[in-house]
Amino acid sequence: MPASKVLLFSGGLDSTTLLWDLRPDVKCLLFHYGQRHVRELENAVALCQRVEVEFEIVNLTAIHSLIAKGSQAGPDPVPLGHYADESMKLTVVPNRNMIMLSVAIGHAVAIGAKGVYTAVHAGDHAIYPDCRPDFIYAMNRAAQIGNEWTPVEVFAPYVNLTKAEIVQHGHYLGVPYRYTWSCYQGLDLHCKRCGTCVERQEAFALAGVPDPTKYEEDKSEASSAS
Amino acid sequence: MPASKVLLFSGGLDSTTLLWDLRPDVKCLLFHYGQRHVRELENAVALCQRVEVEFEIVNLTAIHSLIAKGSQAGPDPVPLGHYADESMKLTVVPNRNMIMLSVAIGHAVAIGAKGVYTAVHAGDHAIYPDCRPDFIYAMNRAAQIGNEWTPVEVFAPYVNLTKAEIVQHGHYLGVPYRYTWSCYQGLDLHCKRCGTCVERQEAFALAGVPDPTKYEEDKSEASSAS
Repeated sequence: MPASKVLLFSGGLDSTTLLWDLRPDVKCLLFHYGQRHVRELENAVALCQRVEVEFEIVNLTAIHSLIAKGSQAGPDPVPLGHYADESMKLTVVPNRNMIMLSVAIGHAVAIGAKGVYTAVHAGDHAIYPDCRPDFIYAMNRAAQIGNEWTPVEVFAPYVNLTKAEIVQHGHYLGVPYRYTWSCYQGLDLHCKRCGTCVERQEAFALAGVPDPTKYEEDKSEASSAS
Repeated sequence: MPASKVLLFSGGLDSTTLLWDLRPDVKCLLFHYGQRHVRELENAVALCQRVEVEFEIVNLTAIHSLIAKGSQAGPDPVPLGHYADESMKLTVVPNRNMIMLSVAIGHAVAIGAKGVYTAVHAGDHAIYPDCRPDFIYAMNRAAQIGNEWTPVEVFAPYVNLTKAEIVQHGHYLGVPYRYTWSCYQGLDLHCKRCGTCVERQEAFALAGVPDPTKYEEDKSEASSAS
């Protein structure tokens, strides 16, 4: 029997917490939309296999050059440091959430699922307008109207939570955060320095939850100390 | 200088008429989402080249199996005869308009275009809920909110016109309808019998515009008469 819920799943802190909330009656869609995310994708696959939920990789690489600014010549450099407005704009793929939601809604109709779930959260509102409640509301409207015979609802249960609040909630659920992946760099371990790594550390610190992440920087410090 | 308008273009009666309304400051996106449409796609490319507007093929074949019901084993049979409710539902790819609009909106942001245009029309309202004004309105809302820094509007100027009214308008504009393609079959000429062919003939008849289409059936009648 197909799952009744479809989740946009990246294997990061937020969508992994939501996976824990929704399992086992959920199918994960993993979006492959550009080279930067291969490491992230492998990790997301491993997580789905660990939780034993159905998943499918959605290959959007064919349209990546259409939507990513200046991406035809390869990816932009990963901005380091805290997510400031200007550096974060570099990481924006225009309309990405709408594209992923549209495909997930179509898939939900095709398999008879009733809900599409996304782990967008309040921490992203300032930077990504397509993570805000009114965007989710408009997409939900469009999904309802456009699929009148087989309506699908769009849910964003964390839309008003901060990343720290999500981590607190997930810690309570027992989410094994050591298996999640946030980093934008393609290293073996988290780099600790890119925007998502900085945000990740901050979320654990603010949540008062021990950070189980293994960082590349700590490894080299440890090996130089030994 | 990139075009300021992006058009969802299929090379059929409706979107070709809209191309004539918008040219030359328009870029056409041609969606390749399944095998049935290769003939349609070739025709759309030829039309863009004839009008000398920029175009790009958006390859969505990688996600076709995700969204098309039962399509994993190949396309459904093409329903023949007039578009009746039940046979038409066979031709529905779930959420197709939302997916195409989402990609087009993302592309518009990437190239700095201000509007995305679709030729959905009143003749489709009964069958395709994602061709109705309230769907377009919801997508336009989502596009505005989700791309706050670089807003893109969604326009559907024919949303309250019938196909016959579009043909009347296009006839006035001088659209060379003989180069447009509607048929769902993969023949050299229009089959005259599938749902879109029946609708095409009806549009010309109701518009009082001579139908310039060459039909497969007429060709075989002509050759058997000779």
